[in-house]
Amino acid sequence: MNKPNLAPSSLAYVPFVSVQNMMALVHSIGIEDFMKGIVAYLEEDFKNWENFDKTPRVASHSAEGVIELMPTSNGEIYGFKYVNGHPKNTHEGLQTVTAFGLLATVDTGYPVLLSEMTILTALRTAATSALVSKHLMPKGATTMAVIGNGAQSEFQCLAAKAICGIQNVRLYDIDPAATQKAVRNLKNQGLKVTSCTSPQEAIEGAHIITTCTADKQCATILSDNMVGAGIHINAIGGDCPGKTELHVDILKRSDIFVEYPPQTRVEGEIQALADDYPVNEIWKVIAGLETGRTSANQITLFDGVGFAIEDFSALRYVLDQIQGTAFMQQLDMVADPDDPRDLFGMVLRAKPNQG
Amino acid sequence: MNKPNLAPSSLAYVPFVSVQNMMALVHSIGIEDFMKGIVAYLEEDFKNWENFDKTPRVASHSAEGVIELMPTSNGEIYGFKYVNGHPKNTHEGLQTVTAFGLLATVDTGYPVLLSEMTILTALRTAATSALVSKHLMPKGATTMAVIGNGAQSEFQCLAAKAICGIQNVRLYDIDPAATQKAVRNLKNQGLKVTSCTSPQEAIEGAHIITTCTADKQCATILSDNMVGAGIHINAIGGDCPGKTELHVDILKRSDIFVEYPPQTRVEGEIQALADDYPVNEIWKVIAGLETGRTSANQITLFDGVGFAIEDFSALRYVLDQIQGTAFMQQLDMVADPDDPRDLFGMVLRAKPNQG
Repeated sequence: MNKPNLAPSSLAYVPFVSVQNMMALVHSIGIEDFMKGIVAYLEEDFKNWENFDKTPRVASHSAEGVIELMPTSNGEIYGFKYVNGHPKNTHEGLQTVTAFGLLATVDTGYPVLLSEMTILTALRTAATSALVSKHLMPKGATTMAVIGNGAQSEFQCLAAKAICGIQNVRLYDIDPAATQKAVRNLKNQGLKVTSCTSPQEAIEGAHIITTCTADKQCATILSDNMVGAGIHINAIGGDCPGKTELHVDILKRSDIFVEYPPQTRVEGEIQALADDYPVNEIWKVIAGLETGRTSANQITLFDGVGFAIEDFSALRYVLDQIQGTAFMQQLDMVADPDDPRDLFGMVLRAKPNQG
Repeated sequence: MNKPNLAPSSLAYVPFVSVQNMMALVHSIGIEDFMKGIVAYLEEDFKNWENFDKTPRVASHSAEGVIELMPTSNGEIYGFKYVNGHPKNTHEGLQTVTAFGLLATVDTGYPVLLSEMTILTALRTAATSALVSKHLMPKGATTMAVIGNGAQSEFQCLAAKAICGIQNVRLYDIDPAATQKAVRNLKNQGLKVTSCTSPQEAIEGAHIITTCTADKQCATILSDNMVGAGIHINAIGGDCPGKTELHVDILKRSDIFVEYPPQTRVEGEIQALADDYPVNEIWKVIAGLETGRTSANQITLFDGVGFAIEDFSALRYVLDQIQGTAFMQQLDMVADPDDPRDLFGMVLRAKPNQG
């Protein structure tokens, strides 16, 4: 009797990008070029926005935080991200946000990529803010204020440099140690970095204000009198019910741009406004169907909460970059018997000391 | 300058059970004992049913099939399964159903288990049918008919043997090769196996009828005149809109038991009935709150579609079995910088030729 071949078939393998490999991949491309690459995929998918299956993320809330699944599909590729948000984790030495994601072919349902997404989410969030800023910021913008200097802040700075041409960043955090960390990390990255001791100081001369704070509470990082005409604001730290960053009067003076209104009305800054308060969908601006900034004095506000299509774009980019490289492992995650109806036989034949 | 330690920390590792390891784990325990083990966890979780976060699965339908996410949580542990259903896959040499699943702690959102679930789903589906049968089948049941002899059939037979004491199985499939495969696989498993050439022949003398066919269409595997008094039916093949197995008149003569009504009304046999047609929740029977079979002549029907809590139970069982064993690998899936706010610094320090 022949010994059965017990090695998993190639169909059973799913390419997996670990945290180590993601970091190696990012450096092989360069952080800024990597985010530029994501932007190109974001633009492609935002232009195809209407053809995506869209749903607000599926959230499981607890007292400590939230665990979410974010699925979407363009009809050919299906993708989803698992992501948690636990602000109290930081105090225990853990990440507030960890994530991983998957792509599969719609035709067969077989996974084609499993990837870490803690790092990739940081990169795609910054790439998205920068893509949106490029369309909404005032002409000739050179200076960005970053309020909240946690895990997301440096990515925002480098994306704004690479994609929007920002040259100066002005950093503020309620915890000076966070600002010091960001200043240290941004050394030799080609940006003029200014450490500030108040939000007021940070926004002096800024053309873009990016708020990326992480507390799960209705906070007011920016009050109305701090925001002058012509500014573009990225408010990306508020991303779940009860978590906001801006005073409601700022919202009312701004033209508001969002990703997917049904999700943003629950999670974003606009949860403070009426359910039918008019907002603009940013994909229409990126697709060229609507104008973003229409005057120099206008305040534009990107109420970013993170949407599944952005993760989809980032995963697509990664999938295309890893082909033929060593930045992945093959994971034996999908059973693939020779005869698809013979799953039981495959299990039987795997019995030790048989054959 | 010290070289940074670039090896991922233990917090970054997620235990992963591959297909190979799942098969090895199953054999180390024994297939029947493994399913008995799942039943014990199912009973525990069904008794705690009211405390679970429950939601119908999140489905992405296409012409070719469906991809679903099935999340749930008991407040301490969060779990979800990714599963596809592509009936046409079989003709291309692929599995109709492939799956993987994950458990995470609600407290931190960090994953604690990633596992293949193609094999595990087959085991939990059979374990669930057998647990339900144990509560609903007529007294002294010894014979089960299995209509549809695809990937699920042998698992159903062994679970019915291990958990319900079934001694005889009578097999029928529209494709005789499928029946031959099942007969071959069930040799020397301690069951009397009869190959049948029609559904009528298969159900002769059967106390339990289990239908597990896979075509995505409204089929009528059983017609009304075939089903006599006192029978228990497991209808588990119909599990999405438009996919049913039984003639509606059988439903009307039966007492119907389901997992989670909001999901079953969309996906199960009862999609053929009015939206408010009375059904029983099987968890109440298993928890001892309601009586299952109340008379010898009653026809009981388990309209099983598969619910997230069953996957949760199976994953919990696996997590407890792999502790301290070699049936898992450590997967570098979650980034874990020393300072949780310093994700960017972790990426920077991973740059080759630094430090």
